[in-house]
Amino acid sequence: MGKIRFGIVGIGMMGKMHMTNLQRNPHAEVVAVCARTASKVKAVQEEFGVPYGYTNVDELLANPEIDAIVVATGADAHKEPVIKACKAGKHIFCEKPLAKTLEDCAEIEEAVAANDAKMFTVGFMRRFDPSYAEAKAKIDAGEIGTPILFKGVSLDPDTVLPAHLEGVKNGIYVPWFIEMGSHDTDLARWFLGGDPEECFATGDAYVCKELADYNDYDNGFSLTKFDNNTTAYIQVGRTGTCSHVESEIVGTKGTIRVNSVPRKNYVSQFTKAGVVEECQESFLMRWRDAFEGEINDFVDCIMTGRKPETTAHDGTMSLKYCLQLHQAYLDGKKK
Amino acid sequence: MGKIRFGIVGIGMMGKMHMTNLQRNPHAEVVAVCARTASKVKAVQEEFGVPYGYTNVDELLANPEIDAIVVATGADAHKEPVIKACKAGKHIFCEKPLAKTLEDCAEIEEAVAANDAKMFTVGFMRRFDPSYAEAKAKIDAGEIGTPILFKGVSLDPDTVLPAHLEGVKNGIYVPWFIEMGSHDTDLARWFLGGDPEECFATGDAYVCKELADYNDYDNGFSLTKFDNNTTAYIQVGRTGTCSHVESEIVGTKGTIRVNSVPRKNYVSQFTKAGVVEECQESFLMRWRDAFEGEINDFVDCIMTGRKPETTAHDGTMSLKYCLQLHQAYLDGKKK
Amino acid sequence: MGKIRFGIVGIGMMGKMHMTNLQRNPHAEVVAVCARTASKVKAVQEEFGVPYGYTNVDELLANPEIDAIVVATGADAHKEPVIKACKAGKHIFCEKPLAKTLEDCAEIEEAVAANDAKMFTVGFMRRFDPSYAEAKAKIDAGEIGTPILFKGVSLDPDTVLPAHLEGVKNGIYVPWFIEMGSHDTDLARWFLGGDPEECFATGDAYVCKELADYNDYDNGFSLTKFDNNTTAYIQVGRTGTCSHVESEIVGTKGTIRVNSVPRKNYVSQFTKAGVVEECQESFLMRWRDAFEGEINDFVDCIMTGRKPETTAHDGTMSLKYCLQLHQAYLDGKKK
Amino acid sequence: MGKIRFGIVGIGMMGKMHMTNLQRNPHAEVVAVCARTASKVKAVQEEFGVPYGYTNVDELLANPEIDAIVVATGADAHKEPVIKACKAGKHIFCEKPLAKTLEDCAEIEEAVAANDAKMFTVGFMRRFDPSYAEAKAKIDAGEIGTPILFKGVSLDPDTVLPAHLEGVKNGIYVPWFIEMGSHDTDLARWFLGGDPEECFATGDAYVCKELADYNDYDNGFSLTKFDNNTTAYIQVGRTGTCSHVESEIVGTKGTIRVNSVPRKNYVSQFTKAGVVEECQESFLMRWRDAFEGEINDFVDCIMTGRKPETTAHDGTMSLKYCLQLHQAYLDGKKK
Repeated sequence: MGKIRFGIVGIGMMGKMHMTNLQRNPHAEVVAVCARTASKVKAVQEEFGVPYGYTNVDELLANPEIDAIVVATGADAHKEPVIKACKAGKHIFCEKPLAKTLEDCAEIEEAVAANDAKMFTVGFMRRFDPSYAEAKAKIDAGEIGTPILFKGVSLDPDTVLPAHLEGVKNGIYVPWFIEMGSHDTDLARWFLGGDPEECFATGDAYVCKELADYNDYDNGFSLTKFDNNTTAYIQVGRTGTCSHVESEIVGTKGTIRVNSVPRKNYVSQFTKAGVVEECQESFLMRWRDAFEGEINDFVDCIMTGRKPETTAHDGTMSLKYCLQLHQAYLDGKKK
Repeated sequence: MGKIRFGIVGIGMMGKMHMTNLQRNPHAEVVAVCARTASKVKAVQEEFGVPYGYTNVDELLANPEIDAIVVATGADAHKEPVIKACKAGKHIFCEKPLAKTLEDCAEIEEAVAANDAKMFTVGFMRRFDPSYAEAKAKIDAGEIGTPILFKGVSLDPDTVLPAHLEGVKNGIYVPWFIEMGSHDTDLARWFLGGDPEECFATGDAYVCKELADYNDYDNGFSLTKFDNNTTAYIQVGRTGTCSHVESEIVGTKGTIRVNSVPRKNYVSQFTKAGVVEECQESFLMRWRDAFEGEINDFVDCIMTGRKPETTAHDGTMSLKYCLQLHQAYLDGKKK
Repeated sequence: MGKIRFGIVGIGMMGKMHMTNLQRNPHAEVVAVCARTASKVKAVQEEFGVPYGYTNVDELLANPEIDAIVVATGADAHKEPVIKACKAGKHIFCEKPLAKTLEDCAEIEEAVAANDAKMFTVGFMRRFDPSYAEAKAKIDAGEIGTPILFKGVSLDPDTVLPAHLEGVKNGIYVPWFIEMGSHDTDLARWFLGGDPEECFATGDAYVCKELADYNDYDNGFSLTKFDNNTTAYIQVGRTGTCSHVESEIVGTKGTIRVNSVPRKNYVSQFTKAGVVEECQESFLMRWRDAFEGEINDFVDCIMTGRKPETTAHDGTMSLKYCLQLHQAYLDGKKK
Repeated sequence: MGKIRFGIVGIGMMGKMHMTNLQRNPHAEVVAVCARTASKVKAVQEEFGVPYGYTNVDELLANPEIDAIVVATGADAHKEPVIKACKAGKHIFCEKPLAKTLEDCAEIEEAVAANDAKMFTVGFMRRFDPSYAEAKAKIDAGEIGTPILFKGVSLDPDTVLPAHLEGVKNGIYVPWFIEMGSHDTDLARWFLGGDPEECFATGDAYVCKELADYNDYDNGFSLTKFDNNTTAYIQVGRTGTCSHVESEIVGTKGTIRVNSVPRKNYVSQFTKAGVVEECQESFLMRWRDAFEGEINDFVDCIMTGRKPETTAHDGTMSLKYCLQLHQAYLDGKKK
């Protein structure tokens, strides 16, 4: 089998990152990129040495040299390329969240089911992080007994707030329980093996108070009862001192933590203020291995015929849970 | 001023521990003990060199040589000695929880108010732990901005389960949200500066399943909205791998954690399994400084006339919150 | 048996600390103190409630009510009270280092041998620190195989430098390899079970350069070959960022570290600079349990007739090793 | 400028690793490989898609399409390809140690000097590890004052011993002070900014006792006085519980540690035995970023004309220091 030939739809930060990782994979090559602005398409083609460039996903999908696509557009623009690519019989790697509404998710699931001969997955890259993968393996091996509680904390540093507020003012509504939370909702389902039943959520726009005018918040705290008698605590925030994603899975016989102290690297420093360990600054650095791992796994699935673990339905269920958390937050505010 | 002369009511593990700490305090002496069983009273008198022994709190309170009492009986036996000691004009140090019902709390508060010339406090010793005290000082100094979230986790090792189940079967009903939780509810109020408004709780008798027959549980998870727009996550359990109490206070500008890794001491060991740090085994060891600190502070209050920070009302409010958590747990089970 | 009645010779910081710990021990009481200055003796008697006060050790030893003494004078003033107390048939707890010359050590050892019916020990309190005691127990249990290397690092914060320089200028010559090093030389012998054979040492007066004029230094680094084919690395310094004593014992099957990160307490703080853990500020705080443990153990030895583990000969051998390190340092400077 | 075209001399584990990293670099391509065994050359050509294969370095160097070579042969086979490549005017990246004798180093330095228009460096990849690079940057920025002590510990797990002993029996003599030590000697010079003056070393074949028959050892401990009044402690071993390289740089105002706890990833696990963090298993995993960083830096040097920081002379001085340590060890054994 020759190299898998990829087209990348959406060439922002995420699209470029997947491009770089695909170019590192000896079994894949990126042959096309697609975005709305012709000049950007051309610039990316030159920077990364990509032969074909398109401003229209139909043209890209019409190119018979393309085996697979990466959908890295904004979340509300996933549906069109995914459904069209299903009809065109391509393999599809879609960024998370799968979509912004459950209706869109349903349409996507239907299209994906009709294209079952091809591979489809959603980019919940945390599952491919070496630490999360090891945590899952240990849990599956029974090392902590039966999982009863998942705790997920996902924080961005407060430096992201001005840009986020600007976006919100311009109508880009991506509350953190949905945008960031989609990772934690996926992890909760993955580790607990159940689905959410009842949610309770609090929080507020504590630092960037203007967000409250848009039903948005900079910190959200939630507790969710699962249908298999387990529980998930999910906390999201944009006011951290660093980029910090930590998780804990409590079992009946032990507990596993991932990234409880978000060390930037192996340096510790003795100062008059104490022992200091600098923290993780950017999610791209933190998840570098995970991003590379997920796309390599997808290429491997295409090559071997193995189905990806994460399905379109996982994407739907993660979003459904996110929307529940967000609604629970809004309900709490009404009281 | 001479030494403060103490009588100790209740001479179980806690009573003896307070005795030892009082005997170490150069400004205090223990002159009397009181318990129901005469032989035990006599044994403790001999072991600790205590001149007076009583089997009846009235007799103890009638002794004019006694300035202050420590109430270390079971939680439902606090009310009687406290109210009588108030009437007798003694200083009173009462173990936590203040009582087991809000009605008892109200009676105690009333009696304490009428004995206002004397000192009264409740034994929330965590406030006197050097680490918690430092956390509070840092927070009061503004080091983490405004607190918005308290997370309290209090776990006992699963070795406590058989004895606990035995107790439950014998009618001793101390669900963990009330017994252990009283510390966390006090800390939540202390750190957040507000009171609980709405609670959501889950959990179950996951390991010691028989507890469910008694409306008891071995793990409880809860999220509580506070009246000052802050939130508390409180988790209690009896299935830990060690004795582990950790707390986190999240502020708008930083976060403080206490005992995130419950190290037993300063030893770390490199083994084939990895780097291992043994964990805290017993709460008496973990809180040794705190227990000594709280009683020393109480002695100091008596000597200087300064009022203890923790009031009878704090005891009431802590219990009220515990009962809310416990009820939220029961409500969740009914669905 | 009644309480062991102690006299304390030398009432500086160390003498007072031992006094406090003895007063906490239910089997001991301090009945006399002795120091050169009558006014200080009187002040200490009043502060601690001690019946007898002396300015002359002979008078103290002549008091038949005294069973045991603690020698807490300067290192060069240990010999006189120890030898006299041996002749007077008292139990003796002597601060470390045993003396400042090997000649004095020999005289002490001889006197102690002649007073063999009584207890004698040297105050190497680190052996009684819970972490060191656990490390020793694990090693004795074979958990790290055969020890082959001891690494000891003992640092004081640089805030001690001005007072130290002042002392040196006034003729108080206590180079760090001798003063602080005596603990590490004792630990090295304790953990490795051998004696030093050949030393190599470097270092300098890097920060407090004036010390070099007095053959003193603020940092000393050394490597020592032991007679049982093991090795010790000992590092002492007065320019730390905190008070930091850490040790490592490397065995053929594992390694144990003690206090690698000198955490002050259980607090960790997330700040923009990273995760910060404050460090140990004072040796009295760090070794509080150890100091209390060593004196309690000594009291227990007297009561039970068990001989203390640390002998006068250990004191001699520790000093001998210190002097070797110090000489190796001086030899290195001559080249 | 087109891509830099590399030839790789030596296609063992290290040669393949550099190949992979060069193939990931968008500015480089590997056009040739060279090794003694024709079948291996062919296999590697096919696995990695390399157009030219040689069994003779002269033929490789005669290929005008080759701009640069990576020398990844055994240490005693570095001299020939390096000197020939200098004469052929190629850029050269040479693995460490530079050679096995100072005579070979001298010849190499001479040849490199005569090829000064081209780039040359030695593969001390630790300098490119993000943590070491950050440590160096902090030190250069004065964060710890003046460095006075370097401590380097480099341990392999004892699982390497059987293969090592087999090699030694077959005449492959690479004592750890030379093989592994070359990294630490380079780091010591890099951080301290001086050169070794006097060494003292101990150690033994504690676990794999047969090594002693070959003047080899499984643990070496050393202290070295530097010509700028600083000191280096270097410890190497093959009996660790894991692959563990840690370093500490002590300055007059602070201390920096790298990899003090060799965590494998971000997982920590609560078990009955305590909190466990698994450790680094392989040096390839630990230094993945460093290896990629060093070759990327070399490519960048070629492209920009900037000279690599690590020179042939650094390679010589590192080896000289290694040989001093090894000799000091042997001298100690004679006594």
